[in-house]
Amino acid sequence: MPYGRIALLEGKSADWLAAVSRSLQAALEQTFEVPAGDCFQVFQQCRPGELVFDREYCGGPRSSDFVLIHITGGRARSPAIKEAFYARLVGLLAVNPGIPPADVMVVISTTSVEDWSFGFGRTASLPAPLSGQEVSAG
Amino acid sequence: MPYGRIALLEGKSADWLAAVSRSLQAALEQTFEVPAGDCFQVFQQCRPGELVFDREYCGGPRSSDFVLIHITGGRARSPAIKEAFYARLVGLLAVNPGIPPADVMVVISTTSVEDWSFGFGRTASLPAPLSGQEVSAG
Amino acid sequence: MPYGRIALLEGKSADWLAAVSRSLQAALEQTFEVPAGDCFQVFQQCRPGELVFDREYCGGPRSSDFVLIHITGGRARSPAIKEAFYARLVGLLAVNPGIPPADVMVVISTTSVEDWSFGFGRTASLPAPLSGQEVSAG
Repeated sequence: MPYGRIALLEGKSADWLAAVSRSLQAALEQTFEVPAGDCFQVFQQCRPGELVFDREYCGGPRSSDFVLIHITGGRARSPAIKEAFYARLVGLLAVNPGIPPADVMVVISTTSVEDWSFGFGRTASLPAPLSGQEVSAG
Repeated sequence: MPYGRIALLEGKSADWLAAVSRSLQAALEQTFEVPAGDCFQVFQQCRPGELVFDREYCGGPRSSDFVLIHITGGRARSPAIKEAFYARLVGLLAVNPGIPPADVMVVISTTSVEDWSFGFGRTASLPAPLSGQEVSAG
Repeated sequence: MPYGRIALLEGKSADWLAAVSRSLQAALEQTFEVPAGDCFQVFQQCRPGELVFDREYCGGPRSSDFVLIHITGGRARSPAIKEAFYARLVGLLAVNPGIPPADVMVVISTTSVEDWSFGFGRTASLPAPLSGQEVSAG
């Protein structure tokens, strides 16, 4: 139930974008409790002057490979899950398409399941495995 | 006080975009307690590779008419109001510009009234009818 | 720890965008408790039909200089801080690049510090001065 908005500088190949897409989705599925196939992303390829970022603040040095990934999630996740997600994401992006770990910035916003509709004008519901855990936990 | 960000694939006509704009605003006014004229929208017409979406996850089949509509609202709404909004939105978009119900995805984020300024550096306040309800409810 | 998304109509010069960038960052640093250098912004230069806004709702008259500035912040700020930010932002933008106060709309979304990673797959932490204040307050 998350969707991601990814801002990066224009000039990357279609393969680069596709690799970012796949690595982001893999990190979400592996660490962020996202079901397979729950993949929705919007890329913005920024022209000169459109993507402004400090090269050194709290990290860096950032390069022209910088990506700002904003995840809007459908429910709260623990700090431990977020930490695991950041680490996995950076690891996967470093391999494919090959983004330096200093260049991966992430922001997460949180909503509730009733804030989502996947179509047909119907409110979303939590995926089945999670409902099952809730039942067994109750 | 909401504003909408609408991502769709490029290649649609100006009339198509205008119809999406009108149907979204009508659905908000009719079901989401949005005053007439409170209309602020940002469209992103995505090039190939910029809009990634699963064709089947929790619905579908999704087509090249897919729209991802992200509403940022100025106060909390009940699940019932959100449900009514999803249903009305899909109904209106199906008529004009003619988007299949499977292709309408919605995400809602919530803020507070003091998170908004409509201009002049002044903090927004709730629209008059709502303030009145609060007074009479208190 | 905020990042800003700025939507405006295309046709402005590179200098105009750079001035918006600088004035926004200065307002954040002067009033929103943002450290120097904590500067991350994504501009969208909207083509005709992509930026829809009411010319009069709760303000105006809005012109083709209209900017919609969406700040995603890393922690809660008081209404007084937000009010000071709106006022300073409008004041600075009026001087440089010269945007009429009626044309500056702002929306603020709030997250938590653990929702941010500035790179290397590590969760962000609050900047030192704030941690210090918390320690002395505790």
